[in-house]
Amino acid sequence: MSLDETYERGLRVTEQLLGQRLDLPMGPGEPASGIDFRKLSVAQTFGESWTRTALDTRGRSLVSVAIAATLGASEPLRGQLRIALNSGVTKDEIVDLFIHLLAYAGAARAFEGYQIAMAVFAEHPNQD
Amino acid sequence: MSLDETYERGLRVTEQLLGQRLDLPMGPGEPASGIDFRKLSVAQTFGESWTRTALDTRGRSLVSVAIAATLGASEPLRGQLRIALNSGVTKDEIVDLFIHLLAYAGAARAFEGYQIAMAVFAEHPNQD
Amino acid sequence: MSLDETYERGLRVTEQLLGQRLDLPMGPGEPASGIDFRKLSVAQTFGESWTRTALDTRGRSLVSVAIAATLGASEPLRGQLRIALNSGVTKDEIVDLFIHLLAYAGAARAFEGYQIAMAVFAEHPNQD
Amino acid sequence: MSLDETYERGLRVTEQLLGQRLDLPMGPGEPASGIDFRKLSVAQTFGESWTRTALDTRGRSLVSVAIAATLGASEPLRGQLRIALNSGVTKDEIVDLFIHLLAYAGAARAFEGYQIAMAVFAEHPNQD
Amino acid sequence: MSLDETYERGLRVTEQLLGQRLDLPMGPGEPASGIDFRKLSVAQTFGESWTRTALDTRGRSLVSVAIAATLGASEPLRGQLRIALNSGVTKDEIVDLFIHLLAYAGAARAFEGYQIAMAVFAEHPNQD
Amino acid sequence: MSLDETYERGLRVTEQLLGQRLDLPMGPGEPASGIDFRKLSVAQTFGESWTRTALDTRGRSLVSVAIAATLGASEPLRGQLRIALNSGVTKDEIVDLFIHLLAYAGAARAFEGYQIAMAVFAEHPNQD
Repeated sequence: MSLDETYERGLRVTEQLLGQRLDLPMGPGEPASGIDFRKLSVAQTFGESWTRTALDTRGRSLVSVAIAATLGASEPLRGQLRIALNSGVTKDEIVDLFIHLLAYAGAARAFEGYQIAMAVFAEHPNQD
Repeated sequence: MSLDETYERGLRVTEQLLGQRLDLPMGPGEPASGIDFRKLSVAQTFGESWTRTALDTRGRSLVSVAIAATLGASEPLRGQLRIALNSGVTKDEIVDLFIHLLAYAGAARAFEGYQIAMAVFAEHPNQD
Repeated sequence: MSLDETYERGLRVTEQLLGQRLDLPMGPGEPASGIDFRKLSVAQTFGESWTRTALDTRGRSLVSVAIAATLGASEPLRGQLRIALNSGVTKDEIVDLFIHLLAYAGAARAFEGYQIAMAVFAEHPNQD
Repeated sequence: MSLDETYERGLRVTEQLLGQRLDLPMGPGEPASGIDFRKLSVAQTFGESWTRTALDTRGRSLVSVAIAATLGASEPLRGQLRIALNSGVTKDEIVDLFIHLLAYAGAARAFEGYQIAMAVFAEHPNQD
Repeated sequence: MSLDETYERGLRVTEQLLGQRLDLPMGPGEPASGIDFRKLSVAQTFGESWTRTALDTRGRSLVSVAIAATLGASEPLRGQLRIALNSGVTKDEIVDLFIHLLAYAGAARAFEGYQIAMAVFAEHPNQD
Repeated sequence: MSLDETYERGLRVTEQLLGQRLDLPMGPGEPASGIDFRKLSVAQTFGESWTRTALDTRGRSLVSVAIAATLGASEPLRGQLRIALNSGVTKDEIVDLFIHLLAYAGAARAFEGYQIAMAVFAEHPNQD
């Protein structure tokens, strides 16, 4: 499978996980090579890793939330929380994950991440 | 002492340190288990650690600022700086702390943290 | 439940997860207060978080490995990998987790962590 | 060379690198010692390191962008990207740098940093 | 180009950069899927990124050293330093890079990384 | 004060803090410019920051331990713990600091750092 095919496969995966195809528009003043950043980042994550099958989608989305929250990467964390809720992870599981993060990565990171989780919970008012 | 008691003790400590009881309201769409995240995070920090006595409150608040600034955790850093100023740490000591952070954790982190310190200094115009 | 009870509960959990009770002997020259570090760290992790039930043990151990690997915390990572293998996580799932870490947290961290995973795999030669 | 001289030299370097002298005004409620934080941070970075000659300005600005992006330090990253574009680094080189960051430090950090790069690209619409 | 081809291309690149093909032997007890971790990590780094041409090999190896040193990833840092010296980066440039890291990422990280640089310098006694 | 003077002042400070002058011998294959890394790192830390007086030596050494432990920088942490014990910080205060680190930066980092603290405690068997 070529990079373009892996990129295309990755975009299809984002559609399943997020309910809509990930849209990464080029910006003003951005060089043409910027498309390569998009292709490689989507291929590496959604094309090559999310399509693997030993770890199921629920387990993989828990791992994704844990990585983004530990790094304190706000916007990626927001995206991974949306994917988790779309993949059948419950809000109670996410609370448990942040309590685990509180224990292992500490209150400073966990507090920051939980504010983002609360904002994503608010986007999904009718979901458990 | 039970978790609920340690949580309650922690909330009383936040009142002493911040001049008002920490208020962590539940958000829309947040599951009921979210209260456990609040209880455990307050119990672990203000209930179990801030109440210890080998390290005094001034030393402990310097350590708290140093941890949050090193992690680059903005909102926790803001809270710890307020606690430090309320606990008798002087602004000159905070400047010295950020100069130490500049030396050991570098200009990128120190610059980011110092912007937050300047915002907290501005909230306390009449304090040394 | 008091801190001593939560600590004791946490130690029993380590026995289930690791096949033997976690042993944290005091060291030469360590002050008596060092026991409090043990009590609080075991209570906060194994006593308060691992005993929660929204996230199951398999999901929780995946999250634990992800946090330790993202932080680059070698000895905690080794412990969490052992717990994961003892909790029914397969080696193939762990490989998938590190491929996900490679994608989201990068080759430098993933390479370091995978060396530790290989060492733990070698301790469990007959397990899938 | 005294600290004041190294600070002054550093400020002149910022003028060359940014097209205008770095301006770090004191804030309301900030103590007089705050000037020392400015002097030491400018002296340490622009006064002592940017003036060295083994690494040329282009190489040094690539390294600066890499450090700030790896740390996830947003405002310092913005400044270093402006310096890089002013120092003859091309936008295509910056894209390549973020693709390298994607590989080695992962998609979470690289995605966050690339958003900032896109904002800086937009400030320089007519530059390659 | 398929993943296997990108992996193979990446291995050829390691041969050019390190003077010998990167060898990543499977370990005892490691599952067969472990080969996928190798393929993806080599493809993502040496196959997809090091083969790009906007950033030249010297610039790219400076960036690689900066990322690994900022993360505090010891073994990856060692490898990147060897690549840098093999790619025409001088020892004086590496010293300048660590002085820049000292300024921006602080003495704690810079000190740790410089110990590794000294060990790699010792492997190359006759090189400038 | 010139860089050489600040370096010399910094070395005298290390003698007061550690009981012996910091010795940083040049290594085999290290370029002559390596002396500049030593001069700048000692000047920036012990020369410019430790000599400041708003924060006292005890407070500063607590902050130093907190920064190094949060970063997970093992060898710098070992040095800062020795400085702390030489500066009148008690072992009980260090235990309290690690309990605070446990709360705010989590069990993974705190566990790693506490192992180093135990090793330093063992070097000082007769001190409180």
